[in-house]
Amino acid sequence: MATSTRSNAHHPGATMRNLNWSATEKAVARKAFDLALQRDLEAVMAETKTKAGKVRQPSDLWELERYLTERRKHIDRQYDFRYSVFPLVFADLIRQGRLRAEELRGLAEDKLEYIRWHSRL
Amino acid sequence: MATSTRSNAHHPGATMRNLNWSATEKAVARKAFDLALQRDLEAVMAETKTKAGKVRQPSDLWELERYLTERRKHIDRQYDFRYSVFPLVFADLIRQGRLRAEELRGLAEDKLEYIRWHSRL
Repeated sequence: MATSTRSNAHHPGATMRNLNWSATEKAVARKAFDLALQRDLEAVMAETKTKAGKVRQPSDLWELERYLTERRKHIDRQYDFRYSVFPLVFADLIRQGRLRAEELRGLAEDKLEYIRWHSRL
Repeated sequence: MATSTRSNAHHPGATMRNLNWSATEKAVARKAFDLALQRDLEAVMAETKTKAGKVRQPSDLWELERYLTERRKHIDRQYDFRYSVFPLVFADLIRQGRLRAEELRGLAEDKLEYIRWHSRL
């Protein structure tokens, strides 16, 4: 496996895009994707309520606007729903604490290997 | 005065920009300008807190973001701090209920005439 990881590291993208996802794996991936997205959105909803509650002066309004714009763009960029890039998406989500490795249980070793590799980058 | 208003109506912009503002009138105008701006900003702060309190789903977040962006642009556009355009600014603010005519007391009749004329457009 160490050899395989080292070999993947040379052309990780090309091989990653050719991975085959079984129907079960697709279901696991979609569930994990939706779970992380839901967590992200709930965090933004909670933070928005906190920030709005603390608005005391006009500059706080525009700071809230910037926060929302930044979060919307980040979420749009991060949650790329294509199986071909899911390993990268999941690796990022694990690094950011939005997903735990055990929530990807059910994916085959070829995907997990990519996810582990990228989440440690 | 009716004749003068009719005459101004033909070239209101050119003449308006040539009005002379005394130091006292400038102070009255600045005070009214700041008062209306403060009212606008306080309304946005109150509405933001209400909207944030009602956030239940992600789409509410992006609706709040759009509201803030629209209000910021509207305020930037509306509050043009140049004496040459103050009569138009005040006329708009009166039309929108942000200023009352009596809050412009102290301005000379030449300015009030423009403001009345434009606020009825």
